[in-house]
Amino acid sequence: MTKVLLASRNAKKLAELRRILVAEQVSGIEVLGLDAVPPFPEAPETGATFEENAAAKARDAVAATGLPAIADDSGLAVDALNAMPGVLSARWSGRHGDDLANVALVLAQLGDVPEERRGAAFVCAAALATPAGAQTVVRAEWRGSLTRSPRGGNGFGYDPIFVPDGDTRTSAELDPAEKDALSHRGNALRLLVPHLRGLV
Amino acid sequence: MTKVLLASRNAKKLAELRRILVAEQVSGIEVLGLDAVPPFPEAPETGATFEENAAAKARDAVAATGLPAIADDSGLAVDALNAMPGVLSARWSGRHGDDLANVALVLAQLGDVPEERRGAAFVCAAALATPAGAQTVVRAEWRGSLTRSPRGGNGFGYDPIFVPDGDTRTSAELDPAEKDALSHRGNALRLLVPHLRGLV
Repeated sequence: MTKVLLASRNAKKLAELRRILVAEQVSGIEVLGLDAVPPFPEAPETGATFEENAAAKARDAVAATGLPAIADDSGLAVDALNAMPGVLSARWSGRHGDDLANVALVLAQLGDVPEERRGAAFVCAAALATPAGAQTVVRAEWRGSLTRSPRGGNGFGYDPIFVPDGDTRTSAELDPAEKDALSHRGNALRLLVPHLRGLV
Repeated sequence: MTKVLLASRNAKKLAELRRILVAEQVSGIEVLGLDAVPPFPEAPETGATFEENAAAKARDAVAATGLPAIADDSGLAVDALNAMPGVLSARWSGRHGDDLANVALVLAQLGDVPEERRGAAFVCAAALATPAGAQTVVRAEWRGSLTRSPRGGNGFGYDPIFVPDGDTRTSAELDPAEKDALSHRGNALRLLVPHLRGLV
């Protein structure tokens, strides 16, 4: 088995990548999370783009572990906010990781923005780096629009205010398997699959 | 004297425009503020651009009063926020007109943004509309960079965190005459002067 590190401590992300590899019939790869390797210092994500952050995280993980590594960075790009919160999605309110405050702030900022200008996209960049120095960065977007109040208990982050195009439910009202099949992160990870096959 | 309405209740803006007309030797124009005309319903500023908001405000004022009217819309465009807060500058924190909260939020959002990516511009669009249906919209920008904490007691809005290019003081540390000579609003209003001469 070829070991590949997913540079994340998020058990849901780990499970999602494993499900995708099964679905895409990629065999011979064992996916490890950060909890399965000795700890190493993780640099803060201060890049100007999702791609920059994902690539840096993957390279750092390779350097620390000697394993091929996948990393992702993702966020919400709101049309009426010129594609922000973007790379600042997790700290938009100034409080890192405070989903409720971040969601409340976006809704308040869009208080006067009419329906036809409430478009948004979830964006994910995913990077694969190898010990030999190869690097692949891919990007996927999931288009939709923003509600005026949160709905749904699944997912995290901005899921409760994002309605994917072609649906009437928020992404927090989709079940996890439905979300996997459609989401920015699912699609970005699937774009890496051909490159993962090349590792085996 | 030709009466021209400045669609604002801000005495400082009124005084600034009058000073500019004197400095530019425009004679024969009397500038009135909104307090000098009968009240009329003012539409909320919900346009997607400064230009749209300024033009709409000027046209509404002409329609209500029959006078030629000037209106402006302005705000801060932060490079690392993709030119936001932009038209949402006055309500960036979700609390309209709360300068302290708006400034604190921008500083928090830029907490991890290094010096070389802290560029910003104050932007002003100014519109002149006439009862005959003519409309002129101009735009001026004032480039600078953002501090890590507020300084200075003059001005308002984001002045305490904006250091104009070529200076080391924030625009809240400039005296009002210095600011007039350099600022986005001063320059936008000066761009309207030739059009104002045409009214006399």
